Amino acid sequence: MTAVATAPAAEEASEGAVKTKKVVIVAYSGELEKTWATMILASTAAAMEMEMTVFVTFWGLQTFVKDSKRITGRNWMQKMMSFMQRPGISHRKLSKMNFMGMGPWMMFQLAKKYNVARPKDLLEMSTQMGVKFVPCQMTMDMFGIKQEDLIEGMGEPVGAATALQLMTDADSTLFI
Amino acid sequence: MTAVATAPAAEEASEGAVKTKKVVIVAYSGELEKTWATMILASTAAAMEMEMTVFVTFWGLQTFVKDSKRITGRNWMQKMMSFMQRPGISHRKLSKMNFMGMGPWMMFQLAKKYNVARPKDLLEMSTQMGVKFVPCQMTMDMFGIKQEDLIEGMGEPVGAATALQLMTDADSTLFI
Amino acid sequence: MTAVATAPAAEEASEGAVKTKKVVIVAYSGELEKTWATMILASTAAAMEMEMTVFVTFWGLQTFVKDSKRITGRNWMQKMMSFMQRPGISHRKLSKMNFMGMGPWMMFQLAKKYNVARPKDLLEMSTQMGVKFVPCQMTMDMFGIKQEDLIEGMGEPVGAATALQLMTDADSTLFI
Repeated sequence: MTAVATAPAAEEASEGAVKTKKVVIVAYSGELEKTWATMILASTAAAMEMEMTVFVTFWGLQTFVKDSKRITGRNWMQKMMSFMQRPGISHRKLSKMNFMGMGPWMMFQLAKKYNVARPKDLLEMSTQMGVKFVPCQMTMDMFGIKQEDLIEGMGEPVGAATALQLMTDADSTLFI
Repeated sequence: MTAVATAPAAEEASEGAVKTKKVVIVAYSGELEKTWATMILASTAAAMEMEMTVFVTFWGLQTFVKDSKRITGRNWMQKMMSFMQRPGISHRKLSKMNFMGMGPWMMFQLAKKYNVARPKDLLEMSTQMGVKFVPCQMTMDMFGIKQEDLIEGMGEPVGAATALQLMTDADSTLFI
Repeated sequence: MTAVATAPAAEEASEGAVKTKKVVIVAYSGELEKTWATMILASTAAAMEMEMTVFVTFWGLQTFVKDSKRITGRNWMQKMMSFMQRPGISHRKLSKMNFMGMGPWMMFQLAKKYNVARPKDLLEMSTQMGVKFVPCQMTMDMFGIKQEDLIEGMGEPVGAATALQLMTDADSTLFI
Protein backbone atom coordinates (compact mmCIF):
# COMPACT_ATOMS: atom_id res chain seq x y z
CA MET A 1 0.00 0.00 0.00
CA THR A 2 3.09 2.25 0.10
CA ALA A 3 2.74 2.68 -3.65
CA VAL A 4 -0.62 4.27 -3.02
CA ALA A 5 0.73 7.13 -0.93
CA THR A 6 3.26 8.12 -3.59
CA ALA A 7 0.91 7.66 -6.55
CA PRO A 8 0.39 10.86 -8.60
CA ALA A 9 -3.41 10.80 -8.18
CA ALA A 10 -3.15 11.04 -4.40
CA GLU A 11 -2.00 14.65 -4.63
CA GLU A 12 -2.62 17.03 -1.75
CA ALA A 13 -5.49 19.49 -1.84
CA SER A 14 -4.84 23.21 -1.31
CA GLU A 15 -5.42 22.87 2.46
CA GLY A 16 -2.64 20.28 2.69
CA ALA A 17 -5.06 17.41 3.27
CA VAL A 18 -5.13 14.33 1.07
CA LYS A 19 -8.11 14.46 -1.30
CA THR A 20 -10.80 11.83 -0.81
CA LYS A 21 -11.07 9.64 -3.88
CA LYS A 22 -14.46 9.68 -5.57
CA VAL A 23 -15.98 6.85 -7.55
CA VAL A 24 -19.24 6.92 -9.49
CA ILE A 25 -20.92 3.78 -10.77
CA VAL A 26 -23.85 4.02 -13.18
CA ALA A 27 -25.82 0.91 -12.20
CA TYR A 28 -27.71 0.35 -15.42
CA SER A 29 -28.10 -3.41 -15.47
CA GLY A 30 -30.41 -5.53 -13.32
CA GLU A 31 -28.49 -8.79 -13.88
CA LEU A 32 -27.28 -10.77 -10.91
CA GLU A 33 -23.59 -10.80 -11.85
CA LYS A 34 -23.44 -7.08 -12.60
CA THR A 35 -25.38 -6.25 -9.43
CA TRP A 36 -22.84 -8.32 -7.56
CA ALA A 37 -19.91 -6.52 -9.18
CA THR A 38 -21.44 -3.15 -8.27
CA MET A 39 -22.02 -4.20 -4.66
CA ILE A 40 -18.50 -5.58 -4.22
CA LEU A 41 -16.94 -2.38 -5.57
CA ALA A 42 -19.34 -0.13 -3.61
CA SER A 43 -18.80 -1.81 -0.25
CA THR A 44 -15.02 -2.04 -0.75
CA ALA A 45 -14.76 1.62 -1.76
CA ALA A 46 -16.73 2.63 1.33
CA ALA A 47 -14.45 0.50 3.54
CA MET A 48 -11.48 2.32 1.96
CA GLU A 49 -13.17 5.63 2.87
CA MET A 50 -13.66 6.61 -0.74
CA GLU A 51 -16.69 8.72 -1.63
CA MET A 52 -18.88 6.28 -3.50
CA THR A 53 -22.02 7.20 -5.43
CA VAL A 54 -24.14 4.72 -7.35
CA PHE A 55 -26.48 6.32 -9.90
CA VAL A 56 -29.26 3.79 -10.38
CA THR A 57 -30.96 3.84 -13.78
CA PHE A 58 -32.97 1.74 -16.27
CA TRP A 59 -33.05 -2.00 -15.37
CA GLY A 60 -30.75 -1.25 -12.44
CA LEU A 61 -33.56 0.47 -10.58
CA GLN A 62 -35.48 -2.81 -10.24
CA THR A 63 -32.69 -4.07 -8.01
CA PHE A 64 -33.49 -1.37 -5.45
CA VAL A 65 -37.21 -2.05 -5.22
CA LYS A 66 -38.13 -3.74 -1.92
CA ASP A 67 -37.94 -7.53 -2.17
CA SER A 68 -41.49 -7.75 -0.83
CA LYS A 69 -42.91 -5.70 -3.74
CA ARG A 70 -44.13 -8.02 -6.47
CA ILE A 71 -45.67 -5.49 -8.88
CA THR A 72 -44.80 -1.81 -9.33
CA GLY A 73 -46.24 0.85 -11.64
CA ARG A 74 -49.18 3.17 -12.08
CA ASN A 75 -50.63 1.84 -15.33
CA TRP A 76 -51.00 -1.58 -17.01
CA MET A 77 -47.85 -1.25 -19.15
CA GLN A 78 -45.68 -0.46 -16.15
CA LYS A 79 -47.32 -3.22 -14.11
CA MET A 80 -46.80 -5.72 -16.91
CA MET A 81 -43.12 -4.79 -17.20
CA SER A 82 -42.52 -5.28 -13.48
CA PHE A 83 -44.43 -8.57 -13.67
CA MET A 84 -42.15 -9.83 -16.46
CA GLN A 85 -39.02 -8.79 -14.58
CA ARG A 86 -39.50 -9.46 -10.89
CA PRO A 87 -37.97 -6.57 -8.91
CA GLY A 88 -35.83 -6.80 -5.72
CA ILE A 89 -32.19 -7.57 -5.03
CA SER A 90 -33.00 -11.18 -4.03
CA HIS A 91 -34.61 -11.88 -7.40
CA ARG A 92 -31.84 -10.97 -9.83
CA LYS A 93 -31.14 -13.44 -12.63
CA LEU A 94 -27.89 -14.41 -14.32
CA SER A 95 -27.43 -13.03 -17.83
CA LYS A 96 -26.62 -16.55 -18.97
CA MET A 97 -26.82 -20.05 -17.50
CA ASN A 98 -29.79 -18.96 -15.40
CA PHE A 99 -31.56 -22.32 -15.95
CA MET A 100 -34.74 -21.41 -14.06
CA GLY A 101 -32.77 -20.33 -10.98
CA MET A 102 -30.28 -23.24 -10.96
CA GLY A 103 -27.37 -20.99 -12.03
CA PRO A 104 -27.95 -18.39 -9.29
CA TRP A 105 -28.39 -21.19 -6.73
CA MET A 106 -24.99 -22.64 -7.68
CA MET A 107 -23.42 -19.19 -7.56
CA PHE A 108 -24.80 -18.63 -4.07
CA GLN A 109 -23.53 -22.05 -2.94
CA LEU A 110 -20.06 -21.24 -4.24
CA ALA A 111 -20.14 -17.76 -2.71
CA LYS A 112 -21.02 -19.26 0.67
CA LYS A 113 -18.26 -21.84 0.39
CA TYR A 114 -15.65 -19.20 -0.43
CA ASN A 115 -16.92 -16.55 2.00
CA VAL A 116 -18.16 -14.09 -0.58
CA ALA A 117 -21.10 -12.06 0.75
CA ARG A 118 -24.38 -12.07 -1.19
CA PRO A 119 -25.51 -8.92 -3.06
CA LYS A 120 -28.28 -8.33 -0.47
CA ASP A 121 -25.80 -8.30 2.43
CA LEU A 122 -23.31 -6.17 0.50
CA LEU A 123 -26.08 -3.68 -0.26
CA GLU A 124 -26.98 -3.40 3.43
CA MET A 125 -23.30 -3.00 4.36
CA SER A 126 -22.80 -0.37 1.67
CA THR A 127 -25.79 1.69 2.79
CA GLN A 128 -24.59 1.58 6.38
CA MET A 129 -21.04 2.57 5.40
CA GLY A 130 -22.28 5.65 3.58
CA VAL A 131 -22.46 4.68 -0.08
CA LYS A 132 -24.96 6.98 -1.77
CA PHE A 133 -27.49 5.16 -3.93
CA VAL A 134 -29.22 7.76 -6.10
CA PRO A 135 -32.20 6.77 -8.27
CA CYS A 136 -32.72 8.25 -11.75
CA GLN A 137 -35.82 10.46 -11.88
CA MET A 138 -36.57 9.64 -15.51
CA THR A 139 -36.51 5.89 -14.87
CA MET A 140 -38.83 6.30 -11.87
CA ASP A 141 -41.26 8.23 -14.07
CA MET A 142 -41.13 5.82 -17.00
CA PHE A 143 -41.53 2.68 -14.90
CA GLY A 144 -43.95 4.31 -12.46
CA ILE A 145 -41.76 3.48 -9.47
CA LYS A 146 -42.47 5.54 -6.34
CA GLN A 147 -39.98 6.43 -3.58
CA GLU A 148 -41.88 4.15 -1.16
CA ASP A 149 -41.36 1.21 -3.55
CA LEU A 150 -37.60 1.54 -3.05
CA ILE A 151 -35.53 0.14 -0.18
CA GLU A 152 -34.68 2.25 2.86
CA GLY A 153 -31.68 4.54 2.61
CA MET A 154 -31.97 5.54 -1.06
CA GLY A 155 -31.27 9.18 -1.89
CA GLU A 156 -33.66 11.59 -3.58
CA PRO A 157 -34.12 10.97 -7.33
CA VAL A 158 -31.91 13.09 -9.60
CA GLY A 159 -31.69 13.77 -13.32
CA ALA A 160 -29.00 13.22 -15.94
CA ALA A 161 -27.49 16.67 -15.29
CA THR A 162 -26.70 15.85 -11.67
CA ALA A 163 -25.36 12.45 -12.72
CA LEU A 164 -23.01 14.11 -15.23
CA GLN A 165 -21.85 16.57 -12.58
CA LEU A 166 -21.03 13.71 -10.22
CA MET A 167 -19.28 11.77 -12.98
CA THR A 168 -17.04 14.58 -14.15
CA ASP A 169 -16.04 15.30 -10.53
CA ALA A 170 -15.11 11.66 -9.86
CA ASP A 171 -11.70 9.98 -10.08
CA SER A 172 -13.22 6.96 -11.78
CA THR A 173 -16.54 6.28 -13.48
CA LEU A 174 -17.91 2.90 -14.50
CA PHE A 175 -21.05 2.06 -16.47
CA ILE A 176 -22.07 -1.38 -15.23
CA MET B 1 -25.56 24.01 -8.10
CA THR B 2 -23.37 26.06 -5.75
CA ALA B 3 -21.63 22.84 -4.78
CA VAL B 4 -20.50 22.51 -8.36
CA ALA B 5 -18.54 25.75 -8.40
CA THR B 6 -16.55 24.79 -5.31
CA ALA B 7 -16.01 21.14 -6.29
CA PRO B 8 -12.31 20.20 -6.62
CA ALA B 9 -12.71 19.03 -10.24
CA ALA B 10 -13.85 22.47 -11.38
CA GLU B 11 -10.36 23.88 -10.85
CA GLU B 12 -9.23 26.93 -12.81
CA ALA B 13 -7.07 26.60 -15.91
CA SER B 14 -3.82 28.57 -16.18
CA GLU B 15 -5.63 31.46 -17.93
CA GLY B 16 -7.93 31.83 -14.93
CA ALA B 17 -10.94 30.45 -16.80
CA VAL B 18 -12.95 27.47 -15.58
CA LYS B 19 -12.01 24.37 -17.56
CA THR B 20 -14.68 22.88 -19.77
CA LYS B 21 -15.60 19.40 -18.57
CA LYS B 22 -15.02 16.65 -21.10
CA VAL B 23 -16.98 13.42 -21.33
CA VAL B 24 -16.27 10.51 -23.67
CA ILE B 25 -18.77 7.71 -24.25
CA VAL B 26 -17.74 4.59 -26.13
CA ALA B 27 -21.04 3.63 -27.78
CA TYR B 28 -20.41 -0.06 -28.29
CA SER B 29 -23.92 -1.49 -28.01
CA GLY B 30 -26.73 -1.21 -30.53
CA GLU B 31 -29.51 -2.03 -28.05
CA LEU B 32 -32.41 0.35 -27.66
CA GLU B 33 -32.00 0.96 -23.91
CA LYS B 34 -28.26 1.61 -24.11
CA THR B 35 -28.70 3.84 -27.17
CA TRP B 36 -31.26 5.77 -25.15
CA ALA B 37 -28.91 6.10 -22.18
CA THR B 38 -26.15 7.40 -24.46
CA MET B 39 -28.46 9.93 -26.11
CA ILE B 40 -29.83 11.23 -22.79
CA LEU B 41 -26.31 11.72 -21.41
CA ALA B 42 -25.00 13.21 -24.67
CA SER B 43 -27.78 15.77 -25.09
CA THR B 44 -27.71 16.72 -21.39
CA ALA B 45 -23.93 17.15 -21.40
CA ALA B 46 -24.18 19.38 -24.47
CA ALA B 47 -26.91 21.47 -22.81
CA MET B 48 -24.56 21.85 -19.81
CA GLU B 49 -21.86 23.06 -22.22
CA MET B 50 -19.63 20.10 -21.57
CA GLU B 51 -17.42 18.84 -24.39
CA MET B 52 -19.07 15.58 -25.34
CA THR B 53 -17.57 13.01 -27.70
CA VAL B 54 -19.23 9.72 -28.59
CA PHE B 55 -16.87 7.14 -30.10
CA VAL B 56 -19.12 4.81 -32.07
CA THR B 57 -17.87 1.26 -32.43
CA PHE B 58 -18.95 -2.39 -33.04
CA TRP B 59 -22.77 -2.84 -32.83
CA GLY B 60 -23.09 0.80 -31.86
CA LEU B 61 -22.24 1.88 -35.40
CA GLN B 62 -25.46 0.35 -36.75
CA THR B 63 -27.39 2.94 -34.76
CA PHE B 64 -25.83 5.70 -36.84
CA VAL B 65 -26.64 4.23 -40.24
CA LYS B 66 -29.45 6.16 -41.98
CA ASP B 67 -32.89 4.78 -41.09
CA SER B 68 -33.68 4.47 -44.80
CA LYS B 69 -30.74 2.09 -45.42
CA ARG B 70 -31.92 -1.50 -45.18
CA ILE B 71 -28.73 -3.32 -46.19
CA THR B 72 -25.12 -2.17 -45.83
CA GLY B 73 -21.83 -3.84 -46.74
CA ARG B 74 -19.57 -4.61 -49.70
CA ASN B 75 -19.66 -8.42 -49.65
CA TRP B 76 -22.24 -11.11 -48.84
CA MET B 77 -21.07 -11.62 -45.25
CA GLN B 78 -21.38 -7.94 -44.43
CA LYS B 79 -24.74 -7.73 -46.21
CA MET B 80 -26.04 -10.75 -44.34
CA MET B 81 -24.96 -9.27 -40.99
CA SER B 82 -26.76 -5.99 -41.67
CA PHE B 83 -29.81 -7.97 -42.82
CA MET B 84 -29.90 -9.91 -39.54
CA GLN B 85 -29.54 -6.73 -37.46
CA ARG B 86 -31.52 -3.96 -39.12
CA PRO B 87 -29.51 -0.72 -38.88
CA GLY B 88 -30.83 2.77 -38.02
CA ILE B 89 -31.73 4.55 -34.79
CA SER B 90 -35.46 3.90 -35.28
CA HIS B 91 -34.94 0.15 -35.46
CA ARG B 92 -33.13 -0.56 -32.18
CA LYS B 93 -34.37 -3.52 -30.16
CA LEU B 94 -34.58 -4.02 -26.40
CA SER B 95 -31.98 -6.41 -24.97
CA LYS B 96 -34.84 -8.23 -23.23
CA MET B 97 -38.63 -8.18 -23.36
CA ASN B 98 -38.46 -7.18 -27.03
CA PHE B 99 -41.46 -9.42 -27.90
CA MET B 100 -41.36 -8.74 -31.63
CA GLY B 101 -41.41 -4.97 -31.09
CA MET B 102 -44.08 -4.93 -28.36
CA GLY B 103 -41.51 -3.99 -25.66
CA PRO B 104 -40.11 -1.01 -27.58
CA TRP B 105 -43.67 0.11 -28.42
CA MET B 106 -44.59 0.13 -24.74
CA MET B 107 -41.37 1.98 -23.88
CA PHE B 108 -42.17 4.64 -26.49
CA GLN B 109 -45.73 4.98 -25.17
CA LEU B 110 -44.41 5.48 -21.64
CA ALA B 111 -41.73 7.90 -22.83
CA LYS B 112 -44.38 9.98 -24.60
CA LYS B 113 -46.63 9.96 -21.53
CA TYR B 114 -43.80 11.16 -19.26
CA ASN B 115 -42.26 13.61 -21.74
CA VAL B 116 -39.04 11.70 -22.37
CA ALA B 117 -37.73 12.36 -25.88
CA ARG B 118 -37.10 9.40 -28.21
CA PRO B 119 -33.52 8.41 -29.10
CA LYS B 120 -33.99 9.73 -32.66
CA ASP B 121 -34.97 13.21 -31.41
CA LEU B 122 -32.22 13.23 -28.79
CA LEU B 123 -29.69 12.31 -31.48
CA GLU B 124 -30.82 15.22 -33.65
CA MET B 125 -30.69 17.58 -30.67
CA SER B 126 -27.24 16.33 -29.69
CA THR B 127 -25.82 16.80 -33.17
CA GLN B 128 -27.20 20.32 -33.32
CA MET B 129 -25.83 21.18 -29.88
CA GLY B 130 -22.32 20.16 -30.88
CA VAL B 131 -21.90 16.61 -29.59
CA LYS B 132 -19.20 14.95 -31.68
CA PHE B 133 -20.17 11.49 -32.94
CA VAL B 134 -17.00 9.82 -34.20
CA PRO B 135 -17.19 6.47 -36.02
CA CYS B 136 -14.55 3.76 -35.49
CA GLN B 137 -12.52 3.16 -38.66
CA MET B 138 -11.98 -0.54 -37.93
CA THR B 139 -15.71 -1.18 -37.49
CA MET B 140 -16.48 0.64 -40.75
CA ASP B 141 -13.92 -1.57 -42.52
CA MET B 142 -15.10 -4.83 -40.97
CA PHE B 143 -18.80 -4.21 -41.56
CA GLY B 144 -18.24 -2.51 -44.92
CA ILE B 145 -20.06 0.64 -43.85
CA LYS B 146 -19.31 3.71 -45.94
CA GLN B 147 -19.43 7.35 -44.78
CA GLU B 148 -22.49 7.94 -47.02
CA ASP B 149 -24.34 5.14 -45.19
CA LEU B 150 -24.12 7.13 -41.97
CA ILE B 151 -26.43 9.94 -40.84
CA GLU B 152 -25.55 13.59 -41.49
CA GLY B 153 -23.23 15.28 -39.01
CA MET B 154 -20.98 12.34 -38.15
CA GLY B 155 -17.27 13.09 -37.81
CA GLU B 156 -14.47 11.49 -39.81
CA PRO B 157 -13.69 7.90 -38.79
CA VAL B 158 -10.81 7.50 -36.31
CA GLY B 159 -8.81 4.61 -34.89
CA ALA B 160 -8.29 3.22 -31.40
CA ALA B 161 -5.28 5.51 -30.80
CA THR B 162 -7.36 8.66 -31.23
CA ALA B 163 -10.10 7.15 -29.06
CA LEU B 164 -7.58 6.46 -26.28
CA GLN B 165 -6.22 10.00 -26.56
CA LEU B 166 -9.73 11.41 -26.17
CA MET B 167 -10.49 9.08 -23.27
CA THR B 168 -7.38 9.87 -21.25
CA ASP B 169 -8.01 13.61 -21.73
CA ALA B 170 -11.62 13.36 -20.51
CA ASP B 171 -13.01 13.94 -17.01
CA SER B 172 -15.25 10.91 -17.32
CA THR B 173 -15.35 7.92 -19.67
CA LEU B 174 -18.15 5.39 -20.01
CA PHE B 175 -18.29 2.21 -22.07
CA ILE B 176 -21.98 1.74 -22.88
CA MET C 1 -1.66 14.73 -33.20
CA THR C 2 -0.58 18.34 -32.47
CA ALA C 3 -3.82 18.75 -30.56
CA VAL C 4 -2.68 16.02 -28.22
CA ALA C 5 0.48 17.80 -27.10
CA THR C 6 -1.43 20.94 -26.14
CA ALA C 7 -4.36 19.13 -24.49
CA PRO C 8 -4.86 20.09 -20.80
CA ALA C 9 -4.57 16.50 -19.56
CA ALA C 10 -0.98 16.17 -20.82
CA GLU C 11 0.22 18.46 -18.05
CA GLU C 12 3.78 18.20 -16.77
CA ALA C 13 4.57 16.34 -13.58
CA SER C 14 6.52 18.08 -10.81
CA GLU C 15 9.85 16.79 -12.18
CA GLY C 16 9.14 18.50 -15.48
CA ALA C 17 8.50 15.22 -17.30
CA VAL C 18 5.26 14.47 -19.12
CA LYS C 19 3.10 12.13 -17.04
CA THR C 20 2.46 8.69 -18.46
CA LYS C 21 -1.22 8.21 -19.16
CA LYS C 22 -2.86 5.36 -17.27
CA VAL C 23 -5.82 3.34 -18.46
CA VAL C 24 -7.66 0.64 -16.51
CA ILE C 25 -10.12 -1.74 -18.15
CA VAL C 26 -12.31 -3.98 -16.02
CA ALA C 27 -12.67 -7.00 -18.32
CA TYR C 28 -15.91 -8.41 -16.97
CA SER C 29 -17.43 -9.99 -20.05
CA GLY C 30 -16.34 -13.17 -21.79
CA GLU C 31 -18.06 -12.38 -25.09
CA LEU C 32 -16.07 -12.40 -28.29
CA GLU C 33 -16.84 -8.83 -29.33
CA LYS C 34 -16.09 -7.33 -25.93
CA THR C 35 -12.90 -9.39 -25.62
CA TRP C 36 -11.91 -8.02 -29.00
CA ALA C 37 -12.65 -4.43 -27.95
CA THR C 38 -10.53 -4.89 -24.81
CA MET C 39 -7.62 -6.37 -26.77
CA ILE C 40 -7.66 -3.63 -29.42
CA LEU C 41 -7.63 -0.93 -26.75
CA ALA C 42 -5.00 -2.72 -24.63
CA SER C 43 -2.54 -3.31 -27.46
CA THR C 44 -3.01 0.20 -28.87
CA ALA C 45 -2.51 1.80 -25.46
CA ALA C 46 0.69 -0.21 -24.96
CA ALA C 47 1.94 0.85 -28.39
CA MET C 48 1.28 4.47 -27.37
CA GLU C 49 3.36 3.84 -24.23
CA MET C 50 0.43 4.29 -21.92
CA GLU C 51 0.35 2.30 -18.69
CA MET C 52 -2.39 -0.22 -19.32
CA THR C 53 -3.89 -2.51 -16.69
CA VAL C 54 -6.68 -4.99 -17.37
CA PHE C 55 -8.46 -6.22 -14.24
CA VAL C 56 -9.97 -9.55 -15.23
CA THR C 57 -13.12 -10.55 -13.36
CA PHE C 58 -16.30 -12.70 -13.55
CA TRP C 59 -16.90 -14.15 -17.06
CA GLY C 60 -13.86 -12.25 -18.29
CA LEU C 61 -11.55 -14.61 -16.44
CA GLN C 62 -12.57 -17.52 -18.67
CA THR C 63 -10.92 -15.71 -21.58
CA PHE C 64 -7.54 -15.99 -19.86
CA VAL C 65 -7.69 -19.71 -19.17
CA LYS C 66 -5.34 -21.67 -21.45
CA ASP C 67 -7.04 -22.68 -24.71
CA SER C 68 -5.99 -26.27 -24.07
CA LYS C 69 -7.90 -26.47 -20.77
CA ARG C 70 -11.36 -27.90 -21.35
CA ILE C 71 -12.62 -28.12 -17.75
CA THR C 72 -11.56 -26.03 -14.74
CA GLY C 73 -12.70 -26.12 -11.12
CA ARG C 74 -12.27 -28.03 -7.87
CA ASN C 75 -15.85 -29.26 -7.33
CA TRP C 76 -18.72 -30.45 -9.55
CA MET C 77 -20.48 -27.08 -9.66
CA GLN C 78 -17.35 -25.27 -10.84
CA LYS C 79 -16.59 -28.03 -13.33
CA MET C 80 -20.12 -27.91 -14.69
CA MET C 81 -19.94 -24.15 -15.13
CA SER C 82 -16.68 -24.35 -17.09
CA PHE C 83 -18.19 -27.18 -19.16
CA MET C 84 -21.20 -25.02 -20.09
CA GLN C 85 -18.98 -22.05 -21.00
CA ARG C 86 -15.86 -23.32 -22.71
CA PRO C 87 -12.88 -21.28 -21.47
CA GLY C 88 -9.97 -19.91 -23.57
CA ILE C 89 -9.53 -16.88 -25.84
CA SER C 90 -10.03 -18.97 -28.98
CA HIS C 91 -13.45 -20.15 -27.81
CA ARG C 92 -15.26 -16.87 -27.20
CA LYS C 93 -18.78 -16.58 -28.58
CA LEU C 94 -20.63 -13.60 -30.03
CA SER C 95 -23.31 -12.16 -27.74
CA LYS C 96 -25.72 -12.38 -30.67
CA MET C 97 -25.75 -13.95 -34.12
CA ASN C 98 -23.46 -16.69 -32.84
CA PHE C 99 -25.31 -19.34 -34.89
CA MET C 100 -23.28 -22.30 -33.63
CA GLY C 101 -19.99 -20.63 -34.51
CA MET C 102 -21.04 -19.27 -37.92
CA GLY C 103 -21.08 -15.65 -36.66
CA PRO C 104 -17.56 -15.80 -35.18
CA TRP C 105 -16.31 -17.53 -38.35
CA MET C 106 -17.65 -14.70 -40.50
CA MET C 107 -16.16 -12.12 -38.14
CA PHE C 108 -12.75 -13.80 -38.39
CA GLN C 109 -13.02 -13.93 -42.19
CA LEU C 110 -13.82 -10.22 -42.30
CA ALA C 111 -11.05 -9.40 -39.83
CA LYS C 112 -8.54 -11.28 -41.98
CA LYS C 113 -9.75 -9.52 -45.14
CA TYR C 114 -9.40 -6.08 -43.52
CA ASN C 115 -6.18 -6.79 -41.63
CA VAL C 116 -7.62 -6.70 -38.13
CA ALA C 117 -5.68 -8.99 -35.79
CA ARG C 118 -7.55 -11.73 -33.90
CA PRO C 119 -8.06 -11.43 -30.13
CA LYS C 120 -5.53 -14.22 -29.52
CA ASP C 121 -2.78 -12.39 -31.43
CA LEU C 122 -3.67 -9.07 -29.83
CA LEU C 123 -3.47 -10.70 -26.40
CA GLU C 124 0.00 -12.05 -27.15
CA MET C 125 1.12 -8.65 -28.47
CA SER C 126 -0.33 -6.88 -25.44
CA THR C 127 1.43 -9.17 -22.97
CA GLN C 128 4.73 -8.67 -24.77
CA MET C 129 4.30 -4.90 -24.86
CA GLY C 130 3.80 -4.74 -21.12
CA VAL C 131 0.04 -4.63 -20.60
CA LYS C 132 -0.68 -5.91 -17.10
CA PHE C 133 -3.45 -8.53 -16.97
CA VAL C 134 -4.48 -8.93 -13.35
CA PRO C 135 -6.93 -11.65 -12.31
CA CYS C 136 -9.58 -11.07 -9.63
CA GLN C 137 -8.94 -13.20 -6.54
CA MET C 138 -12.62 -13.59 -5.70
CA THR C 139 -13.47 -14.87 -9.18
CA MET C 140 -10.61 -17.37 -9.03
CA ASP C 141 -11.95 -18.63 -5.70
CA MET C 142 -15.57 -18.83 -6.79
CA PHE C 143 -14.88 -20.57 -10.09
CA GLY C 144 -12.06 -22.69 -8.65
CA ILE C 145 -9.57 -21.44 -11.24
CA LYS C 146 -5.90 -21.92 -10.33
CA GLN C 147 -2.95 -19.77 -11.43
CA GLU C 148 -1.66 -22.69 -13.55
CA ASP C 149 -4.99 -22.78 -15.44
CA LEU C 150 -4.31 -19.25 -16.70
CA ILE C 151 -2.17 -18.26 -19.69
CA GLU C 152 1.48 -17.29 -19.25
CA GLY C 153 2.22 -13.71 -18.26
CA MET C 154 -0.78 -13.05 -16.03
CA GLY C 155 -0.12 -11.06 -12.86
CA GLU C 156 -0.79 -12.21 -9.30
CA PRO C 157 -4.49 -12.22 -8.33
CA VAL C 158 -5.69 -9.09 -6.52
CA GLY C 159 -8.84 -8.04 -4.70
CA ALA C 160 -11.40 -5.29 -5.22
CA ALA C 161 -9.42 -2.86 -3.03
CA THR C 162 -6.38 -2.99 -5.33
CA ALA C 163 -8.64 -2.70 -8.36
CA LEU C 164 -10.25 0.45 -6.91
CA GLN C 165 -6.82 1.89 -6.15
CA LEU C 166 -5.74 1.33 -9.76
CA MET C 167 -8.98 2.77 -11.10
CA THR C 168 -8.91 5.97 -9.07
CA ASP C 169 -5.27 6.55 -10.11
CA ALA C 170 -6.03 6.11 -13.81
CA ASP C 171 -6.82 8.77 -16.43
CA SER C 172 -9.58 6.64 -17.87
CA THR C 173 -11.50 3.60 -16.64
CA LEU C 174 -13.80 1.39 -18.69
CA PHE C 175 -16.03 -1.48 -17.57
CA ILE C 176 -16.26 -3.75 -20.59
